[in-house]
This record gives sequence, C-alpha cells and structure tokens, in this order.
Amino acid sequence: METLWIVLILLIATRVCGAIASRFGQPVLVGELLAGIVLGIVAAELGSQVFSFELSSDHHLMALADLGIFFLMLLGGFEMRPSDLVESSYKGLVIAVTAMLLPLASGFYVGWLWLPESELHFAQSLFVGTALAITAVPVTIKMFMDIDMLHSSIGRLVVSAAVFDDFLSLILLSVLIAIINTGQLPDYSVLSLILLKVVTFLVIIFLVGKYIMPPLARYAASLKVEEMVFSFLLLAGAVFAVLAELLGLHFILGAFAAGLFFGRHTISKKVYKDLHSKLSAITTGFLAPIFFASIGIELNVSAITEVPVFLLLLVGLAFFGKLFGAAIPARLLGFSSRDAWAVGLGMNARGAVGLIIAGIALDSGLFIAEESPSLLVDNLFSAIVIVVILTTIVAPIGIKLILSKSAST
Amino acid sequence: METLWIVLILLIATRVCGAIASRFGQPVLVGELLAGIVLGIVAAELGSQVFSFELSSDHHLMALADLGIFFLMLLGGFEMRPSDLVESSYKGLVIAVTAMLLPLASGFYVGWLWLPESELHFAQSLFVGTALAITAVPVTIKMFMDIDMLHSSIGRLVVSAAVFDDFLSLILLSVLIAIINTGQLPDYSVLSLILLKVVTFLVIIFLVGKYIMPPLARYAASLKVEEMVFSFLLLAGAVFAVLAELLGLHFILGAFAAGLFFGRHTISKKVYKDLHSKLSAITTGFLAPIFFASIGIELNVSAITEVPVFLLLLVGLAFFGKLFGAAIPARLLGFSSRDAWAVGLGMNARGAVGLIIAGIALDSGLFIAEESPSLLVDNLFSAIVIVVILTTIVAPIGIKLILSKSAST
Repeated sequence: METLWIVLILLIATRVCGAIASRFGQPVLVGELLAGIVLGIVAAELGSQVFSFELSSDHHLMALADLGIFFLMLLGGFEMRPSDLVESSYKGLVIAVTAMLLPLASGFYVGWLWLPESELHFAQSLFVGTALAITAVPVTIKMFMDIDMLHSSIGRLVVSAAVFDDFLSLILLSVLIAIINTGQLPDYSVLSLILLKVVTFLVIIFLVGKYIMPPLARYAASLKVEEMVFSFLLLAGAVFAVLAELLGLHFILGAFAAGLFFGRHTISKKVYKDLHSKLSAITTGFLAPIFFASIGIELNVSAITEVPVFLLLLVGLAFFGKLFGAAIPARLLGFSSRDAWAVGLGMNARGAVGLIIAGIALDSGLFIAEESPSLLVDNLFSAIVIVVILTTIVAPIGIKLILSKSAST
Repeated sequence: METLWIVLILLIATRVCGAIASRFGQPVLVGELLAGIVLGIVAAELGSQVFSFELSSDHHLMALADLGIFFLMLLGGFEMRPSDLVESSYKGLVIAVTAMLLPLASGFYVGWLWLPESELHFAQSLFVGTALAITAVPVTIKMFMDIDMLHSSIGRLVVSAAVFDDFLSLILLSVLIAIINTGQLPDYSVLSLILLKVVTFLVIIFLVGKYIMPPLARYAASLKVEEMVFSFLLLAGAVFAVLAELLGLHFILGAFAAGLFFGRHTISKKVYKDLHSKLSAITTGFLAPIFFASIGIELNVSAITEVPVFLLLLVGLAFFGKLFGAAIPARLLGFSSRDAWAVGLGMNARGAVGLIIAGIALDSGLFIAEESPSLLVDNLFSAIVIVVILTTIVAPIGIKLILSKSAST
C-alpha cells in the first residue's frame, strides 16, 4: 500500500507541475524537479503528521526512482542509433574532457583554499571538483526529449559527451574513494584495473549487442507469448545494467547500451514503434516523473543561510566552468555561437549522477570535521546538492530559451 | 540496484517458465507461479550465498508485487464494461454466496474438530473456513485473459462473482480480526459500520467514475503534455485504491473500479486501444509475472511432511467445496454442465487474497499455540499457503482443459 501512496502523491504533484511548466513554455522535467522540491519541504515540515513514512529515505520511493532512471536510460538508448554516438564521438570526447577539466580544476582550487586543514582536506577538495565536473546522462536525455531535439546534432553531441563524462567521472570517483579509504592516490594497478573493466564492459556490450541480442530477440518474438518482446527488452536492459554494476561501472550505462543495441535495426519498424510507445508510457507517464521528483526531494537548504558566499562561489564555478568548458571547444569545432552556448548549457545538468556521487561521499564519511569544526565542511553536502539541483533546473530552461530563439531567427 | 537484480531474476524466471507453460498448452500464469515456487526453494536453500537479501521478505520485491496487483486490477477493469458486471451481477451474487458458504462451513467444521482446544480455537476454525472460502479477483482476471475468455459469459460471471466474494471475505475478515482482538463476535455496530463503508465506497466510486472522471480525463488529454492520459489513468487507479484502503476495503477493489469506469465510453476508440497496449505491456510484460512469482515464493512446505493427512483434507475441502458450491448453482441458473464445472474451477483461484488474509492472521498471532503445543497449529499457516497456491495452480489448468474440450465438441 505504501507504494500506492507514493505513486499517488508523487505522480499527481509531478504531472500537475509538469503541465504548468509546459504551459509556461518550460520543459516538463523542470516542473517535475520543482514538484519534488516542494514535496521535500512539505514532508520535512509536516512529515510525521501527514505521511506515516519518511519520504526522503523511503525504500519504496528509492525502488521506484531506480526503476525511473533505468527506464529513462533504456528509452534514451532505444531512441538513438549506435551510429549517432559514433559520429559525434570525437567531438563528444573533446567536449567531455574540457568541460570536465575546467570545473574540476576550479572546484578543487576553491576547495583547497577555503576548506580547513585536516586529514581529509585533499579528498574534500577533490570531491568539490568532481561534483562540479559532472554531467548526468539521464537528465540530458530527458531534457532533449522534452524539446524534441534528441536527434539534432546538438542533442547527439551533448548525450555523447555526457556518456564520456560518465565514464571519466567513474574513474574520478574511484580515485576519490581510494583517497578517502587509504589516504593516498591510487597506484597504477588500481587505475589500470578500472580501465580494464571499462574496456571489458565495452567489448562484452558490443559483442552481445551485435551478435547475440538480435537472434534472441527474434526468438522471443517467435514464441507468441503475450508481451514477450517487451519483456525481452527489459531483460536485456537488466542484464546489461547488472553487468555494468558488477564491473564497477554505474548501471545507467548498461541500461543505455541495451536500448542502443536493441534499437531499430534488430526489429521491424512496426515492432519498434509499438515498443517505443510502451516504453514511453511507462517512462514519461509513470516512472521518470517520480525519479525527477526524488532528486528534488533531496534538497537541503541549510547551506543557503549558513554559508551563502561559499555556495554562490560554487554555483558560479559549476555553471560557468561547464558553460565555457563546453562552449569554447564546441565553437572551435565549428558549431555556431548559439549552438555552442546550448551545448555549454546542456552539459550543465548534473542531476542524478551528481547526487549519487554526493551520497557516496556522505556514506564514506567525507563530511565529518572532527579535529576542527567548520561551517563549510558541515554544509558542504548541502551546498553540493544545491549546486546539482540548481544547475539541473537552469540547464533545460536555458537550452530551451536559446534554441527556440535560434530557431526563430 | 537491488530492484534491478530482482527484476532480472524474477522476470527471466517467470517469462521462461511462462513460455514453457504456454508451449505445453497451459496458461502463462501457471508457469509464473511455478517459477516463483522454484525461486523460493532455491533462495531458501542457497539464499545467503547467492543473494545479498532475503527474497521472501524483500521490501523492493513487495513494492513491485504490490504494483503488479495494482496494474492487473486496473487492466482487468479497463478491459471490462460496467454493464458486463451489472448483467451478471444477480447470478454472480448467488454463486459468490453459495461458493463461499460450502467451503466456509466445512473448513470451520474440520478446524473445530481437529484443532486443539484453546482460547483461539474458535478464531482458528473460522480462519480455516475463511481461507478456504476465498476467491482472488486478480487471479481470475489473469486466468481468463490467458485463455482469451475474459469477455465470455463464463469469464464475466466468474469475475463478477469473485468481486462479490471479495466484499464478503472482507466482512468475514473483519469478524475474524474482531474475534482475535476481543475474543468475541463483533456487535451490530461494528458490522453495520463495515456495511456503511462498503456502501460509501460504491456510491463515491459510482459518482466520481460517472460524472467527474470523464471530463477530467478529457481535460488531461487537452493539455497536450506527453503521456498525460496514461498518467491520468494511473492516478485514477491510485486515488480509488487509496480510497478503498481508507474505507477499510482492499485496494484492489479501487484499482479495478478505476479501470472499469475509465473504460471505453469516456475515451475514443483509438485512445482506448493505445492505452490498452501500454497497460498490457507494463502489466503482462513486466509487473504481473513478478507478482505471481511473489505468490509462489511464499510457499512453505513444512505441512506436507508434518501434517499430511490434515493438509490433504483441507486441500480436498477447499477444492471440492468451491467446485460444487459454484458449479451446482451455475447449473441450476441455466449454464451447461461443462460451463458449470468451468465456473466451479474458476472460483477455485485463491491466489493473492488468500495469502493476504493468511498474512494478516499470522501477524495478529493466530498461530501461536502457547498452552498446548500442537503440530496442527504450528503448521496451519504453511497448510493454508499450500492450499492457496495449489488451488491457484489447478484452477487455470482445469479451466483451460474443460473449456478447450468444450470448444472442440
């Protein structure tokens, strides 16, 4: 029953706010994020009187939100062609690297200067840099879906760059975790193991996706058991997602890859359209809104009143670091000035991945300032969550504004 | 991530077993139940080595299974017309009553004779009767969907009778809980309060479903926000489900009613077909298999070795009590002999509702035999779970056998 309460409250809030956002010409996901923020505040204020459960740490909500990311990535991959990514892979890699380096370096530098000396000083500074440097694939996908530009050259470029960004940030995260646990930089063997796992993942995905999945999908379709092909698509996503996780990568990369390889070439146009309609309903109409609300619910505003200057600095570095870090190379790579700004804005969505990394850092005790109590360290988690959510709201609003202007001129 | 592991394991097991069942000419849900039983045994044997979590009491699985029943009831209601139920309501009520009374009385009698004297003796006997007397709406719906006969006169009759059965069993359950808590039969005020709640539920559902839902659905469609009508259907289901639960009824009745009233008359044929395809994918291709497996997982076989004779007696009373209790009045109401047997078999599916009632009884301490240790009482829960699962497997197999013979003659 608790699950149905959550579905009821979150779905009604997100769909109403999504419709309002859409009415004001904004992407639907902005409304869904804001619905989550409002729900989070309401739940924190009246929580125990209204709900019989804690919304922000509820197991059922987490299960639904996980399914939401899963379906979003599966749908995103399903809508793209592997060739879309390959074509924009060179430009995507360049933009991913520069758009990571600028906020990473400036975030690290500010952390290093502002945060107090302690054993964790280096790790905390690196965390600030990493959190600012991230782009979230699920959010970029939904953002371009909302404005119907996933297949435009900008959409493909940003998603491709975001996928590279995701691989790079996983490497950064491993470095960070090694530093927190052992107090020093990981050695070459650890780093080459990570690289080996990434390569293993890509090779398996490619071989299975290209040679094993298509005949299996045709076999599943030949069984004539109701909805078997749809189940097969979900199963392919779950297998790849679990594989990614077993190799120390994030499961979203597996779900995305499964959608990508299942796509148009393995099945007939009619089956593709049918599966797409079903996948879209469960994603856009059910689980993705709940997932975006679950991001908004995480908002903790303590940093706004406690460390406003530091927070403002981080927001500025995060936003402009990504913006220039992506827009300048995009311009140099031949995109028009407006398109380059759009790419810079698009890369600013930190959404899910930013929160996941902040959560991992929280769990590993990065924000404990035992020796020297510090307001900055106490509010570091809150500040990063605000940066993540704020840039995730600004990115789709900005990109819609720029690209609709661009279209009208 | 745990959610994805569960999706992976349960979906692969159920879809493979469902396909095998279908290959052998059996309904898909039989395969799904058996997949759950096998998984439950495997998890119990190797559990901690294979899974990092306890499958049978996992929160994420419970959330998915709850969603599974929810979607199954929503789809069942969506496929039927209110008039289908009204037309067969008289016959359905007659069959529901007789098919409850026979197993209820015989189950109570056996419990009274066999179970040891104690404070809980009366309550335990009534529990045995109630558990044998139940028919589960979700299972009857899926059973007739699997053989594509939900709209046949038998399908409509059995579902209608199962819905009445559900209302009646909720009343029985309230009586049972009152006896467990207070040690005596509930007085008239308690019973009339239950009746009042049932009537309130029916009146609200009818008024909202008939006058408020259709214009709201049209408004949602006019918003032109992606997948808004699908979301609206889910929200209607969630609202009615929560309403049912608040009035002390089971949420499945609310979800069913929402599907029933949303149906064909409120929306265009094209929208209906589109929504049906989406609802069917998420139900049949994703959540319903997981729900049926979650029933199988509950199987606890201790009663087979500990109290085989008592178990056999209960299985016999449950099966033949329902069979004759439904088939005889069906024959008298003018159904052919084969159709009457089919109705008797169809009413035998105890599935979800039986397990829910057994679970409530377990939680309220009905199976604690403090004064006089008794093998029968210790194994009563296991025995009832076996009865429920066994009759739920036999019902669809038998009905398919009878009705396909009937069609060929």
